Amino acid sequence: MKKFMNSSDDFLKESLQGFGAAHKDIVTCHYDPIFIIRSQPTKKGKVALITGGGSGHEPMHGGFVGYGMLDAACPGFVFSSPSPDQMIAAIEKVESDAGVLFIVKNYSGDIMNFQMAAEMMTGPSETVMTNDDVAVEDSSFTTGRRGVAATVIVEKIVGSLAESGGSLQECKNLGDKINKNSGSMGVALSSCIVPAAGKPTFELGADEMEFGVGIHGEPGRRRDKIKSAQEITNELLNAIIEDLKPENKDEILLFVNGMGGTPLSELYLIYDNAKKTLDNKNIKIARSLVGNYCTSLEMQGASITLTKLDQETVNHWDSAVHTAAIRWGM
Amino acid sequence: MKKFMNSSDDFLKESLQGFGAAHKDIVTCHYDPIFIIRSQPTKKGKVALITGGGSGHEPMHGGFVGYGMLDAACPGFVFSSPSPDQMIAAIEKVESDAGVLFIVKNYSGDIMNFQMAAEMMTGPSETVMTNDDVAVEDSSFTTGRRGVAATVIVEKIVGSLAESGGSLQECKNLGDKINKNSGSMGVALSSCIVPAAGKPTFELGADEMEFGVGIHGEPGRRRDKIKSAQEITNELLNAIIEDLKPENKDEILLFVNGMGGTPLSELYLIYDNAKKTLDNKNIKIARSLVGNYCTSLEMQGASITLTKLDQETVNHWDSAVHTAAIRWGM
Repeated sequence: MKKFMNSSDDFLKESLQGFGAAHKDIVTCHYDPIFIIRSQPTKKGKVALITGGGSGHEPMHGGFVGYGMLDAACPGFVFSSPSPDQMIAAIEKVESDAGVLFIVKNYSGDIMNFQMAAEMMTGPSETVMTNDDVAVEDSSFTTGRRGVAATVIVEKIVGSLAESGGSLQECKNLGDKINKNSGSMGVALSSCIVPAAGKPTFELGADEMEFGVGIHGEPGRRRDKIKSAQEITNELLNAIIEDLKPENKDEILLFVNGMGGTPLSELYLIYDNAKKTLDNKNIKIARSLVGNYCTSLEMQGASITLTKLDQETVNHWDSAVHTAAIRWGM
Repeated sequence: MKKFMNSSDDFLKESLQGFGAAHKDIVTCHYDPIFIIRSQPTKKGKVALITGGGSGHEPMHGGFVGYGMLDAACPGFVFSSPSPDQMIAAIEKVESDAGVLFIVKNYSGDIMNFQMAAEMMTGPSETVMTNDDVAVEDSSFTTGRRGVAATVIVEKIVGSLAESGGSLQECKNLGDKINKNSGSMGVALSSCIVPAAGKPTFELGADEMEFGVGIHGEPGRRRDKIKSAQEITNELLNAIIEDLKPENKDEILLFVNGMGGTPLSELYLIYDNAKKTLDNKNIKIARSLVGNYCTSLEMQGASITLTKLDQETVNHWDSAVHTAAIRWGM
């Protein structure tokens, strides 16, 4: 196994220590239990956005803690759900009278543990569950559809609403709306290797891809021979569009996400190919995001997310944000 | 070969088209010949910073074109020098009376072609040559030391000076100073694959690393069995420190750079391990940068760069910048 690590036991802690030290102006990491909060306390009366999930998807979610996005993130071990005590410790640090919004990707362990934390806390809370992956219904760790890269979009847009004084119910409603208006699908050219396992999660032939792969290496729609970027892109887009049914007049956010091991040049090439196809379909790209945001360790692969936008959500997308991984307007 | 591409001939153009479309508020890409400039014209009287080099190192350099950094970048084909006509076309778009500063990594082809462009232009120009890689003297494409990740630091700091009205000579002097005050070294856990070649640039055993690797897969100091992250980090740091000779009171910028295929979690882990070692040596980390900035396609690997800072350079590091890949303060 080729990784920069000292031991699989210390992988998460050392990585978080580096993250916390490199961005100490933005985040503060706690280690017992593990959670990440903003280094500047959240202002009073603001809905607190708390998320979490297994590690291995960096910069998701710790890289999105900061002004204009999340108040706290609770990372579990690699591809493992965080525990309720991590969430409770984070809640104690960031909750206010305005309540707590949990943003949870649809994996059974995450859903169960965030639900336990919600029941253990005394203040008001709501949950936005993301399930944007159109590839498959039900999967290794999921009942229903998997929550993947659109979670980044939900966290940015709802983060802006919360920062500007939105109520708990308004934040919940907007998060549900963004999730409903988003569809994603991914493809893997290689497997990732979980540090504690020490071997690839799945095997792929030298000329194969896993079409519709999950962000933990879960099976997709099918195993296939690798195709041209334009063919792959079209097939991803068609699957998303079939589900999302954008109309001619719709403006969308086009998000090309890397899985961790694919270089930026290839992600921009996918963006180009996707733009050509969307232009042909008269679907207007109003906003863009390209890069490694919702990853699967060192997996070579990419996903496309489309989110239907309106004036409210565009404004929240554009608003100032200051996190380790997404920063603009300040 | 597992890449998202349609043909190796179209790889650069399609990737640039995606880059230009995704960031049209920041950059404008030209295709005949190929160069990238700011979408907002450079203000009159400002020294124009122009750089270039082979593609395959994204986001370097196109991702650094924008306010506070570069005025233009000329990407060659993957790992191939750009031609003088690209540079001349870029010069025509961005030069002003204040002159042009070329920032060129020390590879023989790049140096030669930028020199030809400088001779062909009529206005004043100076060149900063970066050669921060302490691993080896002379290499496959280089006489002397290779220019690698410190080029990012040079471009940010000199970009700030140019933006704030520094003269051509002042920009040249500051660039030379940052280069002299920087040292870098990298390690590869896997090779990259040049699209037109279609096979790995070099072969590495399942338990091997290339220690001191170049950003085109050039040989380093030695081939070795992979070690723990802390051992690798210490050996990289020791080689840099031996060359750079920082003193106890020196404040440094610690830059942990990914080669393209290594996940962020491992880069932060290296940052943590480096910080422990620097703390023990009483070398103070004043600023940090962690991420994929000077890459080698999909190579798994990382490099460490140390830059000695002073008050002037810290101020220029902190100043506002708005490019596709580095953005803060606005």
